[in-house]
Amino acid sequence: MRLIETVAELQAEADRERAAGRRIALIPTMGALHEGHLSLIDEGRSRADRVFLSIFVNPTQFNQASDLDQYPRTFEDDLDQCKRRVVDVVFAPSAEEMYGPGSQTFVDVSELSQPLCGGNRPGHFRGVTTIVAKLLLAAKPHVAVFGEKDAQQLAVIRRMVADLGFDVEVVGAPIVRESDGIAMSSRNVNLHPEARRQATVLVAALDAAESMIAAGERDHAEILRRVNDEISKAPLATIDYAELRDPDTLAPSPGRLSGPALLALAVVFDAPAGESAAGVRLIDNRMLLAGTARGGGRKAEIHDP
Amino acid sequence: MRLIETVAELQAEADRERAAGRRIALIPTMGALHEGHLSLIDEGRSRADRVFLSIFVNPTQFNQASDLDQYPRTFEDDLDQCKRRVVDVVFAPSAEEMYGPGSQTFVDVSELSQPLCGGNRPGHFRGVTTIVAKLLLAAKPHVAVFGEKDAQQLAVIRRMVADLGFDVEVVGAPIVRESDGIAMSSRNVNLHPEARRQATVLVAALDAAESMIAAGERDHAEILRRVNDEISKAPLATIDYAELRDPDTLAPSPGRLSGPALLALAVVFDAPAGESAAGVRLIDNRMLLAGTARGGGRKAEIHDP
Repeated sequence: MRLIETVAELQAEADRERAAGRRIALIPTMGALHEGHLSLIDEGRSRADRVFLSIFVNPTQFNQASDLDQYPRTFEDDLDQCKRRVVDVVFAPSAEEMYGPGSQTFVDVSELSQPLCGGNRPGHFRGVTTIVAKLLLAAKPHVAVFGEKDAQQLAVIRRMVADLGFDVEVVGAPIVRESDGIAMSSRNVNLHPEARRQATVLVAALDAAESMIAAGERDHAEILRRVNDEISKAPLATIDYAELRDPDTLAPSPGRLSGPALLALAVVFDAPAGESAAGVRLIDNRMLLAGTARGGGRKAEIHDP
Repeated sequence: MRLIETVAELQAEADRERAAGRRIALIPTMGALHEGHLSLIDEGRSRADRVFLSIFVNPTQFNQASDLDQYPRTFEDDLDQCKRRVVDVVFAPSAEEMYGPGSQTFVDVSELSQPLCGGNRPGHFRGVTTIVAKLLLAAKPHVAVFGEKDAQQLAVIRRMVADLGFDVEVVGAPIVRESDGIAMSSRNVNLHPEARRQATVLVAALDAAESMIAAGERDHAEILRRVNDEISKAPLATIDYAELRDPDTLAPSPGRLSGPALLALAVVFDAPAGESAAGVRLIDNRMLLAGTARGGGRKAEIHDP
């Protein structure tokens, strides 16, 4: 496994692989790797000859300095996991490498970046699309793999890649869940133990909505009422959003669902009163009315590889 | 010479050339080719094995519909000129090919896009950087050649390429001038004959500034006063801007010049009173205090190839 820290070296490595006729998969991450990320490596491996994984906690996608400070960093452990999972190249640049002196160029996906996480995290997606554009230009991959947990991010990146004409296939990989159903996230380690227990309401809400759909319910408002009820069972939960949206355009779903709908949740879990731990914002989602192939999530088989 | 109209075909062509170890030069143009463009082809040829030239009148960089309508289009003649100058690939996509349904992604270079042409043409440079990013991703060139006549455009593109990490060398090619000194521009054909005669004040103003510098003058205000005087000798001229700027950051030059300074002009030449021709906005520039290698302009040897 090779560790590369500069864009120029990564481009040279990509050129060598391409000249040799080998396909490259890129897995962009912010580190603090968990089984969800490792499933992306496997997905990349199945579609390419070489797997490049980037680890970069991208400052421009954090709209609050405190969130950037608190984001977990486990670099040595990340490298160990990459070695065991047979990553070929880890790209771990500095912030100065990715945003040099006088840097002032941004990539913006205008409409898709507005709703959901875009509403409460201004500038977030501009940071995401800018860094993903830079990583695609640095790694020159044939395929790039992203987790479906970040459903809006995936939609925004698909749009950017299509609009600008990046010659790369964007692949979404299913959500990986803990044994109790919580979607794996680097942020989970920041949850207070009691908040961690209550966070199972997210998957309970998704399951409840899926059951309603299976039972024939199509009323948008009824489904969201039930979702809100499920989440409200957690006293530490504050809903940021719980919405049904078109999976591609992210436009609000119609009053009666008739096609694929993305149920997207963002909920802040605070620590119990008197405890000092900060609140942690979790997101989760499920594709409704769209079969099981996409966004349905799956249980991880190994929790601590 | 191959004519290509889709991004996918151009990318496949670029992949073939790259797999064969050949270097590609891209010349992005809006067509209406003149000797200035042809000099860019020669520059590209000297730096690469294959020359790709794009012809696309990019709607997003026109802030006025009338300007887009009036922009000259000479496609068949352009193709003839490319054949004679031995271009390998002409890429001539439709607007729909470059901006597909739901297109909403833009590339923005924030500060450099603000002054000079950015001030009077809002959104212009966002359109330029977006289409150039798309063209670079479509043609996958090793080198891209731009004319120094569009000095701010060149600075903005250099910034974008550096910031996003495009693996391409950006080359600026010297301004090519008519025998009377007017910088070649596709827009020149839209000038009323009398306006065309008066437009020589632009190069007269640049020459005057250069002479002042050669004689030891370093006072910013004195030089601009003389530049304004020269341009004012043309009754049909209305100055949009005449400024001395840092060539890379485009920050205003200090009160006393001490290093390289870009003298940048934008002037509208109207038709004489009573004539129906529309006004035409011309730009020109010269690098002062920077030797002769850059931006000094040169006479064209052939006017009608």
